Amino acid sequence: MSLLRPHHGGNLSWAAALAGCNPQEILDFSASINPLGPPASVLAAITQHLGDIQAYPDPSAAALREQLSLHHQVPMEWVMVGNGAAELLTWACRSLSEMTQVHLLTPAFGDYGRALKAFDVKVYAHSVIASIEQQRSHGFSLQSLAAQSVGLTQAGLLLNNPHNPTGQLFAKADVLELLEGFNQVVIDEAFMDFLPSADQHSLIPEIGNFPHVVVVRSLTKFYSIPGLRLGYAIGHPDVLGQWSAWRDPWSVNALAISAGVAALQDTVFQQQTFDWLAAAVPQLREGLAKLPGLEVISGAVNFVLVRCDASVTQLQEYLLKQHKILIRDCVSFPELGDRYFRVAVRTIPENERLLAALSEALQRS
Amino acid sequence: MSLLRPHHGGNLSWAAALAGCNPQEILDFSASINPLGPPASVLAAITQHLGDIQAYPDPSAAALREQLSLHHQVPMEWVMVGNGAAELLTWACRSLSEMTQVHLLTPAFGDYGRALKAFDVKVYAHSVIASIEQQRSHGFSLQSLAAQSVGLTQAGLLLNNPHNPTGQLFAKADVLELLEGFNQVVIDEAFMDFLPSADQHSLIPEIGNFPHVVVVRSLTKFYSIPGLRLGYAIGHPDVLGQWSAWRDPWSVNALAISAGVAALQDTVFQQQTFDWLAAAVPQLREGLAKLPGLEVISGAVNFVLVRCDASVTQLQEYLLKQHKILIRDCVSFPELGDRYFRVAVRTIPENERLLAALSEALQRS
Repeated sequence: MSLLRPHHGGNLSWAAALAGCNPQEILDFSASINPLGPPASVLAAITQHLGDIQAYPDPSAAALREQLSLHHQVPMEWVMVGNGAAELLTWACRSLSEMTQVHLLTPAFGDYGRALKAFDVKVYAHSVIASIEQQRSHGFSLQSLAAQSVGLTQAGLLLNNPHNPTGQLFAKADVLELLEGFNQVVIDEAFMDFLPSADQHSLIPEIGNFPHVVVVRSLTKFYSIPGLRLGYAIGHPDVLGQWSAWRDPWSVNALAISAGVAALQDTVFQQQTFDWLAAAVPQLREGLAKLPGLEVISGAVNFVLVRCDASVTQLQEYLLKQHKILIRDCVSFPELGDRYFRVAVRTIPENERLLAALSEALQRS
Repeated sequence: MSLLRPHHGGNLSWAAALAGCNPQEILDFSASINPLGPPASVLAAITQHLGDIQAYPDPSAAALREQLSLHHQVPMEWVMVGNGAAELLTWACRSLSEMTQVHLLTPAFGDYGRALKAFDVKVYAHSVIASIEQQRSHGFSLQSLAAQSVGLTQAGLLLNNPHNPTGQLFAKADVLELLEGFNQVVIDEAFMDFLPSADQHSLIPEIGNFPHVVVVRSLTKFYSIPGLRLGYAIGHPDVLGQWSAWRDPWSVNALAISAGVAALQDTVFQQQTFDWLAAAVPQLREGLAKLPGLEVISGAVNFVLVRCDASVTQLQEYLLKQHKILIRDCVSFPELGDRYFRVAVRTIPENERLLAALSEALQRS
């Protein structure tokens, strides 16, 4: 058990040690995972397919790619499945390493740094947070980035939409305007499926027109199966064929394939999730905005970035010790430091528990 | 369902289509997996830990690394867990790509080619089969390779011991003699655990003296869990730290971690496996040697390479259509072609079924 501060949400061993309790007792707001899952249908599919572990997984993951093909109305050849979105980001960055520079919005999901560094990618960073701090209501303008990309040669773009950790959703028109300025584009839409209107914002419906663009998606956050690992990419078959040729053929385990098929068919769970989001997102955002010393950064998804007048590492420690509640500090994002925290949207009663604990902690400080 | 000839054992969809039956009806001798597994203890551990899929897997896989550390009597820092040995071979080849050339015995496990090519590794091939065909009883001599490696600079070695597909086991003394001639060595011991005397042959007990050597192991073959994906590497912490920094932190799924812990503790299953091997290996080898037109290549492990006077692709098709038995043709190994096949050692009655079917097929041809 490591007592080092984790660089990612969800490190419950670390939190439990600090709180002096079992990891199961921690109310975890640090990992942005759907609190309603995993769906019973997914657990049933895993149990039913337990015997599949005895054989190699299907390298083509045909059953799952067929479901994804139906789900997104794209041909199967345009779909690739990964051992979590993180594995796909590895090969995305292997591909992006062919570019002379890759544009990235910062702060960024920490694992981008790992994958970019693994292949010595030269990164050109654009600060989202400076822009958000200067003109709070507008957020970062992709149009300014598009203007800067005119005339670039062999330039790549790794874009996160909605953006983590700010939660900013970029308009599809602005994203489309960006694409022509780059030779290779990877759009990480890991949290897009938490938007009921995802299809209006996602680039997937347009993907057929952009052979140089790949959209990466996660299935672990919406369906609460991060321990099983499952993600996918949608893009031109030539690009995905190259990624597949690099990685080993059995990277996606057999249980994840069956779980994914069941998850995509579970429209009841999907509707329950959207119903929960419609109530819980405004509850948490408005509740946080009312608390003294906190400022909610505009965000569209199932997590909220908050600016805090007090030290977040102290606040985090207090919430763990007094309330067994874990919030995500932002110390691992150099651009954010000790004045920001991120919380996942959880169930209505759990959100209430967080708001009450925060209220108590902030009044005390 | 693809009707293309598979490049790896275990493609049951392809075989079932040819045999005109369900994949479950095929008696599969093509994948070298322990037919006694998965152990009940492993299935129980997966069921018991099903709830773990809701959280991210422990990036350090501490629980499993602790078991492996005990199992091999090496410090935990010298152990890295992978999403199958195949994932570890990816990063092994990323590392070997720093060498000016990498020495490899051929024919070789097909996935080496994928990983070596992914990082543009320059391969220097040594033909095992030519040596075996010329002097059957001795097999390939590592000493001749050691002699050739004198004076090499920045040279790498990717060695498979026991060697797949020939089954040749290289003596530890010969392997040790090789190590000094290379700057980086990766030894794939994927089938080593099928030898009851593995510790006498494995390089793991010596690993502390060789910071430039990494041993890669599989847990999926002995414990029959290839669908779950699980392998590990034993080597110097600096080397494994570099591999870990390249790959994503959550590559090993939570169920595989729990399955691995249970598997390593299941000494009853381990003993059952060794008892079965002691009877089934000689049964199959001797039975094959008695059949007309077949010649058994010397091999030490749970699979047998066989040279065949007749066309193997025709024999394979006949066995599928008439007996629903799948043998591994060697067409994907360019050095072997249509005159060799590989069969896994299965249970005594299953081996009998194979021998009877082969006898019938060979008498007919």
